[in-house]
Amino acid sequence: MCVSTIAFDEWVREVLARTEAALSLVLPPANVEPIQLHQAMRYAVLGGGKRIRPMLCHAAGQALGAPSQLRDTASCALELIHVYSLVHDDLPSMDNDNMRHDKPAVHIQYDEVTGLLVGDALQSQAFIVLALDVFDVYRQVALMRILACATGSLGMAGGQAIDLASVGMRLSKTQLEVMHQMKTGALLRAAVKMGAICGDGMSADIEAGLDAYAQAVGLAFQVVDDILDVTARSTLLGKTAGKDAANNKPTYVSTIGLQASLELVARLRLDAYAALAPLGKRGIRLAQIADMVVERVN
Amino acid sequence: MCVSTIAFDEWVREVLARTEAALSLVLPPANVEPIQLHQAMRYAVLGGGKRIRPMLCHAAGQALGAPSQLRDTASCALELIHVYSLVHDDLPSMDNDNMRHDKPAVHIQYDEVTGLLVGDALQSQAFIVLALDVFDVYRQVALMRILACATGSLGMAGGQAIDLASVGMRLSKTQLEVMHQMKTGALLRAAVKMGAICGDGMSADIEAGLDAYAQAVGLAFQVVDDILDVTARSTLLGKTAGKDAANNKPTYVSTIGLQASLELVARLRLDAYAALAPLGKRGIRLAQIADMVVERVN
Repeated sequence: MCVSTIAFDEWVREVLARTEAALSLVLPPANVEPIQLHQAMRYAVLGGGKRIRPMLCHAAGQALGAPSQLRDTASCALELIHVYSLVHDDLPSMDNDNMRHDKPAVHIQYDEVTGLLVGDALQSQAFIVLALDVFDVYRQVALMRILACATGSLGMAGGQAIDLASVGMRLSKTQLEVMHQMKTGALLRAAVKMGAICGDGMSADIEAGLDAYAQAVGLAFQVVDDILDVTARSTLLGKTAGKDAANNKPTYVSTIGLQASLELVARLRLDAYAALAPLGKRGIRLAQIADMVVERVN
Repeated sequence: MCVSTIAFDEWVREVLARTEAALSLVLPPANVEPIQLHQAMRYAVLGGGKRIRPMLCHAAGQALGAPSQLRDTASCALELIHVYSLVHDDLPSMDNDNMRHDKPAVHIQYDEVTGLLVGDALQSQAFIVLALDVFDVYRQVALMRILACATGSLGMAGGQAIDLASVGMRLSKTQLEVMHQMKTGALLRAAVKMGAICGDGMSADIEAGLDAYAQAVGLAFQVVDDILDVTARSTLLGKTAGKDAANNKPTYVSTIGLQASLELVARLRLDAYAALAPLGKRGIRLAQIADMVVERVN
């Protein structure tokens, strides 16, 4: 695990740059009708975001020898789904959040109906991207199946439904975990799996290891999110801090306390490391992403 | 074109019944978590709707020898996309309609956020369905590509954006046609194409004929919709009549007048017949669907 911070920073910068370029290419140009919808789709997707899902996809793909074009395309599909979910989550009827990535949310910058349609169209765009001719048909079908399942009612959308139904309720740690495994975990796991599928094929123990890694990192990501909602400032987060507490949403901090949440994150990092054992040195980027997720301050 | 009305009625009843059964199977059961979301998805999809897209898919598929299981699966994906669009269109920020298929719209029966999530999850479900193992991978990729493109910003979602931006504006007949070709035409064309792809392969002239047919029927469907919005009663429509006029939306009736709209529908029916020539007698169901679309009263 001892690669210099600089090398990983450079790798992150490269992933961010190539993801931005790839997303710009797969989104319809802003001068094509319907112009406002396309402008708003580009506004939502480009120029912001942590790009964690593309990072996971690239890292898993690189570990298994996946060509960059395939990793880029799968990453775009993942990020389009992620951004669609953010745009809809920010809507007044959902979380009613005005800021996203340090700029006005789509429904503020444009209007509510544009926010609704941008999310809808971005979900379709993700599947349009996976239908591009860069993959062989076997990979295409596998990627579409994984992404659609991670996105739907047994994945991300279902997790959001449970989250909204939990406002004001006291959840057990297990219930909270199930909700997050669906709401954010499903797409993070899909990111690792999709990256790996772009590669050369893998043994059963690598496949299982990657999935255990993705589960640990996905959960850590959420616990850190809950911790930051309490400890960070809005200016640092790029979104409104303290929202969960204000909205009376159950979080790890409200359910098990701040200290236990911090300890859980530390344990999940070790779980993630351990799960990468079958990959040996090829798992280095994934380990570094685990570190980044755990140590992030926004 | 001289097949008895009874035979077509029976065929329609069979398509409706098998579509209902297939949709019930591909939707998550109502007792699986998140229960309310799954109940609401089933409420939105089952027990109502004209099922025009499944009819087109089955008719085109049967003309080209497609097995029933493939037609059923493609039909479900199409109908899930269609229902997702209805659920979102009915939302307060969009068309704000309280009734759909003679019952309260999803956001009335449940709440607004459930309407949003039901639409989101139904879109994902359509791609989950196409990822089922009933197709060979080549057909799967083709079907996914057609459906995703028909659904996104250059298809249905884009058409809806143009429609909403046109409120209070006077559109030319051509602009109106472009809007409808995207908003409803794209998915109706996809229905014919997807049904055909489930079959044995087709010559270029059959492919072109089917697409010309689908364009004519798609446009006729919309013009009839606009006519019915003026001439029919809400009780007959199963949704609120006069909404377009009340919302100051450009329609065929407001753009070219009622008489010219009726003449256009008659011409489109002849166009649809003519486009089916390469199919010979195999095009009979498609011709009957054209009749049904033109003659419908709700």
